[in-house]
Amino acid sequence: MATAGRGRKPPVGEAVVDRAFKLLNSFDAEHRVQSLAALARRSGIPRSSTLRLARKLIDAGALERLEDGDFVIGLKLLEVASLAPRGHGLRAVAMPYLEDLFHVTQQHVLLAVRDDDDALLVERLSAHDATAVRFRVGGRMPLSATGVGLVLLSYAPADVQERLLRDFTPASGNNLVGWDSVVELRRALAEVRRGGFAVQIGGTLSTVAAPVRNANGVVAALSVVLPSTNLSPGAYVTAVRTSARAISRHLGAAPMEP
Amino acid sequence: MATAGRGRKPPVGEAVVDRAFKLLNSFDAEHRVQSLAALARRSGIPRSSTLRLARKLIDAGALERLEDGDFVIGLKLLEVASLAPRGHGLRAVAMPYLEDLFHVTQQHVLLAVRDDDDALLVERLSAHDATAVRFRVGGRMPLSATGVGLVLLSYAPADVQERLLRDFTPASGNNLVGWDSVVELRRALAEVRRGGFAVQIGGTLSTVAAPVRNANGVVAALSVVLPSTNLSPGAYVTAVRTSARAISRHLGAAPMEP
Repeated sequence: MATAGRGRKPPVGEAVVDRAFKLLNSFDAEHRVQSLAALARRSGIPRSSTLRLARKLIDAGALERLEDGDFVIGLKLLEVASLAPRGHGLRAVAMPYLEDLFHVTQQHVLLAVRDDDDALLVERLSAHDATAVRFRVGGRMPLSATGVGLVLLSYAPADVQERLLRDFTPASGNNLVGWDSVVELRRALAEVRRGGFAVQIGGTLSTVAAPVRNANGVVAALSVVLPSTNLSPGAYVTAVRTSARAISRHLGAAPMEP
Repeated sequence: MATAGRGRKPPVGEAVVDRAFKLLNSFDAEHRVQSLAALARRSGIPRSSTLRLARKLIDAGALERLEDGDFVIGLKLLEVASLAPRGHGLRAVAMPYLEDLFHVTQQHVLLAVRDDDDALLVERLSAHDATAVRFRVGGRMPLSATGVGLVLLSYAPADVQERLLRDFTPASGNNLVGWDSVVELRRALAEVRRGGFAVQIGGTLSTVAAPVRNANGVVAALSVVLPSTNLSPGAYVTAVRTSARAISRHLGAAPMEP
């Protein structure tokens, strides 16, 4: 039986699941190790409830407790998460082709899927000496600000596109790339759809990206990220598109237009 | 407010977290897509509660529902799971070295950690034409039956070793490799500790594995898996050990004995 803490009743039934995920979601790349106090503060859950919930999550393997009492995300979650068809399922099919592309280009190779209004990085291969990028597997990137994002946005359902374009301003956080206007962004999206690939020249990094399809449409985007000192990113277009098509064929995509 | 279903009260408070993970854990490599009925049956949770819980898990992004009503593990879990220090944290450091090893050997390259009495596969790189193996990222392997497992078991705490050796019989499921006796297995473990690597010659696959350390000791095992038609697996020992040491150095391991 759960006990009520300090005159405030803990939520009953399924509401506890929300709280459990609030705890898990309080971890991010900057907060991979958290004390009980940080966990309570960042999740907004009273400390006594936080401890009880955290213990349950430890039993489930979703959290692990370090010797000093701090909490980290548990390995068991990787086991469950690896069963997500849009994550490791896709990744398992794509991996040998990502390897090929990485081996030939010796640049960062990214594979991402759209999750709501973000691109979520499913895989990244990087050489020891590749230009440092802040993308990490499992991390999110704005759709309008990355090569893979631009491809995913280009092929996103109309309602997603309209929502993002409606909220877009040249000064918005989504505008890391520096689109001068929403008109320019719209034009870029149309160009991606027409050409079947995206080339973005950035300040320090450039990207070449192409869509990955299954029988139902575009399910992911593949890209090569290279330093902007490389003056011919266009030279990578053929390789990225070819690899994207090979993955698509394995995912059951219908024969495609050129 | 949760409603009681068919005269049976749903669990209150944190017990719901157990149930939520029962649902998530009912997915495995053979059950990546499940109907509501299968979900209820395999988790042992009444169907009405299963549906309520599944909806909560969908809200949290831990499950996704397909158009035909079936359930799959959600991508959001990958985002959280990727923050596990023993999973993707380790993987991020190790990946470039795994790439090197894969590139040079063109064989399967595995990175695994110990989770209780299993080896859990954190990363696997495979060539298009590498011999098929059943290992998958996020999957579990018995400690005594794989190269990485043998290394992890060799360096596991004494109580873990004793438990596994006590329960070991030549006929047990843990004996895929075919140790004739627990004495033979003990001898193999001692040899791994002495030499700092494991070589296993199997029926169709052979493995060369070595320990990966951080400042506190062995945290993972690295291996190359090759077809048993390759008659000199020993030729890979130097490469695997060298890569394992490079990863260990990056993880903060102290300078090691040769």
